[in-house]
Amino acid sequence: MRAVDAAPSPRYGYLGPEGTFCEMALTRWLATDHHRAQAGDATPVPVPCSSVVGALAALRAGELDAAMVPIENSVEGGVTATLDALSVGDELVIVGEVLVPVTFVLAARPGTTLADVTAVGTHSHAWAQVRGWMDAHLPGATYVPTLSTAAAAAGLGGGRGPAADAAPYDASVSAAGAATRHGLSVLADDIGDNRGAVTRFVLVSRPGRTPAPTGSDKTSVVLFQRDDHPGGLLELLEQFATRGVNMTRLESRPTGAAMGSYCFTIDFEGHVTDERVGETLMGLRRVCAQVRWLGSYPAADGVPTPPRAGTAEADFVAARDWLAALRSSATR
Amino acid sequence: MRAVDAAPSPRYGYLGPEGTFCEMALTRWLATDHHRAQAGDATPVPVPCSSVVGALAALRAGELDAAMVPIENSVEGGVTATLDALSVGDELVIVGEVLVPVTFVLAARPGTTLADVTAVGTHSHAWAQVRGWMDAHLPGATYVPTLSTAAAAAGLGGGRGPAADAAPYDASVSAAGAATRHGLSVLADDIGDNRGAVTRFVLVSRPGRTPAPTGSDKTSVVLFQRDDHPGGLLELLEQFATRGVNMTRLESRPTGAAMGSYCFTIDFEGHVTDERVGETLMGLRRVCAQVRWLGSYPAADGVPTPPRAGTAEADFVAARDWLAALRSSATR
Amino acid sequence: MRAVDAAPSPRYGYLGPEGTFCEMALTRWLATDHHRAQAGDATPVPVPCSSVVGALAALRAGELDAAMVPIENSVEGGVTATLDALSVGDELVIVGEVLVPVTFVLAARPGTTLADVTAVGTHSHAWAQVRGWMDAHLPGATYVPTLSTAAAAAGLGGGRGPAADAAPYDASVSAAGAATRHGLSVLADDIGDNRGAVTRFVLVSRPGRTPAPTGSDKTSVVLFQRDDHPGGLLELLEQFATRGVNMTRLESRPTGAAMGSYCFTIDFEGHVTDERVGETLMGLRRVCAQVRWLGSYPAADGVPTPPRAGTAEADFVAARDWLAALRSSATR
Amino acid sequence: MRAVDAAPSPRYGYLGPEGTFCEMALTRWLATDHHRAQAGDATPVPVPCSSVVGALAALRAGELDAAMVPIENSVEGGVTATLDALSVGDELVIVGEVLVPVTFVLAARPGTTLADVTAVGTHSHAWAQVRGWMDAHLPGATYVPTLSTAAAAAGLGGGRGPAADAAPYDASVSAAGAATRHGLSVLADDIGDNRGAVTRFVLVSRPGRTPAPTGSDKTSVVLFQRDDHPGGLLELLEQFATRGVNMTRLESRPTGAAMGSYCFTIDFEGHVTDERVGETLMGLRRVCAQVRWLGSYPAADGVPTPPRAGTAEADFVAARDWLAALRSSATR
Repeated sequence: MRAVDAAPSPRYGYLGPEGTFCEMALTRWLATDHHRAQAGDATPVPVPCSSVVGALAALRAGELDAAMVPIENSVEGGVTATLDALSVGDELVIVGEVLVPVTFVLAARPGTTLADVTAVGTHSHAWAQVRGWMDAHLPGATYVPTLSTAAAAAGLGGGRGPAADAAPYDASVSAAGAATRHGLSVLADDIGDNRGAVTRFVLVSRPGRTPAPTGSDKTSVVLFQRDDHPGGLLELLEQFATRGVNMTRLESRPTGAAMGSYCFTIDFEGHVTDERVGETLMGLRRVCAQVRWLGSYPAADGVPTPPRAGTAEADFVAARDWLAALRSSATR
Repeated sequence: MRAVDAAPSPRYGYLGPEGTFCEMALTRWLATDHHRAQAGDATPVPVPCSSVVGALAALRAGELDAAMVPIENSVEGGVTATLDALSVGDELVIVGEVLVPVTFVLAARPGTTLADVTAVGTHSHAWAQVRGWMDAHLPGATYVPTLSTAAAAAGLGGGRGPAADAAPYDASVSAAGAATRHGLSVLADDIGDNRGAVTRFVLVSRPGRTPAPTGSDKTSVVLFQRDDHPGGLLELLEQFATRGVNMTRLESRPTGAAMGSYCFTIDFEGHVTDERVGETLMGLRRVCAQVRWLGSYPAADGVPTPPRAGTAEADFVAARDWLAALRSSATR
Repeated sequence: MRAVDAAPSPRYGYLGPEGTFCEMALTRWLATDHHRAQAGDATPVPVPCSSVVGALAALRAGELDAAMVPIENSVEGGVTATLDALSVGDELVIVGEVLVPVTFVLAARPGTTLADVTAVGTHSHAWAQVRGWMDAHLPGATYVPTLSTAAAAAGLGGGRGPAADAAPYDASVSAAGAATRHGLSVLADDIGDNRGAVTRFVLVSRPGRTPAPTGSDKTSVVLFQRDDHPGGLLELLEQFATRGVNMTRLESRPTGAAMGSYCFTIDFEGHVTDERVGETLMGLRRVCAQVRWLGSYPAADGVPTPPRAGTAEADFVAARDWLAALRSSATR
Repeated sequence: MRAVDAAPSPRYGYLGPEGTFCEMALTRWLATDHHRAQAGDATPVPVPCSSVVGALAALRAGELDAAMVPIENSVEGGVTATLDALSVGDELVIVGEVLVPVTFVLAARPGTTLADVTAVGTHSHAWAQVRGWMDAHLPGATYVPTLSTAAAAAGLGGGRGPAADAAPYDASVSAAGAATRHGLSVLADDIGDNRGAVTRFVLVSRPGRTPAPTGSDKTSVVLFQRDDHPGGLLELLEQFATRGVNMTRLESRPTGAAMGSYCFTIDFEGHVTDERVGETLMGLRRVCAQVRWLGSYPAADGVPTPPRAGTAEADFVAARDWLAALRSSATR
């Protein structure tokens, strides 16, 4: 019998339906979230959402406790819906990241052969990544956009989605798992034009849950320039360079205000509690119209770049102590 | 009677079907291309294409003489398909640009009322721009992706496209012209969340047709960094700053090689024949692994930023003459 | 009757003998040092010293309480003896500055006329500043170096210095006061080639006496580069630029280690207790092999440059508060 | 028999009298000037001058054909008289440089012992470099300034200079050669506080004689800023950094116009005919109020710094060719 006062399981949204790469990211996250496991917290319940915007809205409204969303693809670039939804509205913070290799299969109902395929359904981003294969192997096939890769597979499946006969395509491009789940046969494997493609997903939460520094962390921000003066971006980047902070991603995004008005979403190495990150953030805050901090979180991959001479944590501490000594003489 | 040996009309591709914003851009371009008109060249024939990638492939193959494609939207940002297709493959150059205000209408077959609408068809980019209006006025409506906004309208029309009954939606979001063309009734006008949204289209050609400088020009390039060293972007931007050249757009795009490997597509003021642009291009060429020049062309809008002291054309000429005099003494 | 335990008057050294521009600087300082006057401190006793190096050595040894020394001349540049003596050895700090207009007179014993003058005695720095006048009016006169301008005048005087007959020159170049003091007649007035020449003197003290900020302050430092890499100076200057701190003087000085090994003495606007100065100093400390702080003190002239947008004191405080809030969420 | 119309020997000035370090520099130059030797030019006649200003004036007036003058000392720094004389007036150019180790001896008339010495004569720059030795070995000795180190030795010698009895000092500090030449005994050898001190001399000529590039060259300039804006020096230095040009010396010098108004004399690697030097000079010319080119000449020491990636001569040539190709398409 379950205890009356047991905390309800937290709800973690993802870009559904079941079988998406985003669900794979969440599954991977939950399997390796040792911190939560040790704390004895209840296992989160995955909740499929129909769109990034919808998932983040539900998170802001308190209907979700976290949301796993794609932020960047090694082939397609930044996921604009995610970048934009994080840049405006109530503040949300990134608390973790997961890298998922993106491997596509062409699948169809059992009995369908490659020669039978005249129309292919998939998400527009996936379509962009298999164009080369399609031109080579199915040059005459029509493209039919769907809401997700998993939805394309579901559309051909039996029990779920619209009736199979209604689907205006006879093959889907999706992750292998989605094809299996819906009882489809794989016609071709690993059809992405860019082997080694990876999508980066981030787990987003409401503010107040910043993970502790691990020594290999990332911080994300959105920077809005004070005005559109030439050299403005240069001035922003110098704030990083002066403190020896390495950027790992830079995207310009229109603010929507006017053609030519941009903000910049930037990921960089380090944690908000690091000295050099703190000073960089303060510098950005001073020269930008607005700085939106999107969180500090453990990096999914690799070792951080060794700091340049003079920018290690100890260098900052030594400089701070030295200044304090100078100032103490000034205020005696 | 037409002369037997008359040159055939040039073929200009655009992102179809008829009724897209892209067709509007091409129509506007043809109406104002005084240079062509004066030269007595034959009027180009508009040719609808099913995708940006397809249009540019046809251009490279010689099946088209030019192609009008979207490159940037003031709300959604860079059009990745266009940016990527220009960055690789045989070289193409931009020879002109057109700005088109983006205004959406919600339309349906005559007799349909707003209360009847349960599913809405449109292109995913358009859907992103009307989400706010939809949440407020049609919160329960399902989204159905289509290949273009014009295709969404066509899907509901009578004579063209799939049979009306087959369209899995009962209203479309498109330009007003597309709704009219397909005999639809407008249920709501100007429903974009961001009034003043503009899309920038560029006319692309095979190399060899660079327009003459007008005094108000733009140049576009794609820059591939030599290696991913911290401060690398800073070094690129200093090449512009040192010569007083103003950037009007900067987009980072993954090269696809690996997560974290980017190239940069940059637009800036000035023409390749301008002194300060020439020196900037040479500087970029030296510090980049590769520089892909995407053309110099008349700016669609506005006056160029006045050059900073010491970076006007005359300053470059004076400096060149002075250096020549110094050197003549050195080689006597 | 004087109290037994009265503090002895402090001893302030200057570059003597009496009648030098340096004595004028000290006199002016003592007349306007309101802070000391209000505190009821005893009036300092001026103590002539034979050289800058000797004065600063006596200060370090505790034989003096302060020393007024020249640091910069608007015509001749930095005073290397002072710059070097401050850069090595026990630390000393600048606690104030005085600007003294430098006006020279040609003087001789009464009865001597301009036509009689065949040799002129003065300090080599003064000689450099009257060369033009000498070439025009006394082209045949020989130059005889002396230890100071005042010593040149004293050499011609009666009661002091070497016997008049022994002086190997018959006219001196000095301040008007020194000529008068030694009973000389002025043959020509204001003979400096550069009207408006000014020498900047600084009052130096042992550490522990930093004046409070006034809102119009200067700070002086000596920077030793970590290694001689190209662009090293650029990196130092960016530490100032990033925080919007204005330099008012920059001198390179050889470290003596080898040809091409330099340190930099830099004056800049602001007080060590100012936020932007503190962050700049910490940044310099990190990228330099050594930073020697030479003090913060009220500027003798003028209004400080208005801070650039984002670099005012309030901007730094706001950024610090913002960072603290971000971090508090990270350590909850 | 010598031909009647033989060209007269050229006259090369130096800072005299005989026995100075400057004469040593000229002697060394003449011994190694292979270019002149091969051309069969007549051997220059050394001409002692009483001052740097005088030597350069004679050169400008055509009374000399070249002048060897000190420009920098590894201990004392820049020689202001030389820097200033080159910065204004008719243009002169540096055509070569010589490095001379500076080793001082204390010398006196035979029979004098160290214990007898009560006053020491030398040039003020030399005095500054032996202060430490003097404080340790002759703490009570008085300093007597002289016009040069050689003049100090001459003052004690028999046949030359003023009568020995008249010299107001009993020992001199000079080069060993000057002591020997005047029949003095060396009381102490190598007494400089900084072993390894070196003075850099430059051979100056009227314009029109720039030496050909050797692959290891230097170029010298004087830069006058357009106005005193904060960050102005940073902007100048970026002109070098952008082209990968290494500075080897930077001196700020007051322009004399007002306190705080500086020009910069800068030496850097490379020859005016080098691509990267040419572009740097043009860049400086554009952002400065005035650029004074002081010549390109073979470096006396060492190998040039290897160019950074992208700044080698071949990189500049490749970039220039690439730009030409782009432009040819633009003007077809």
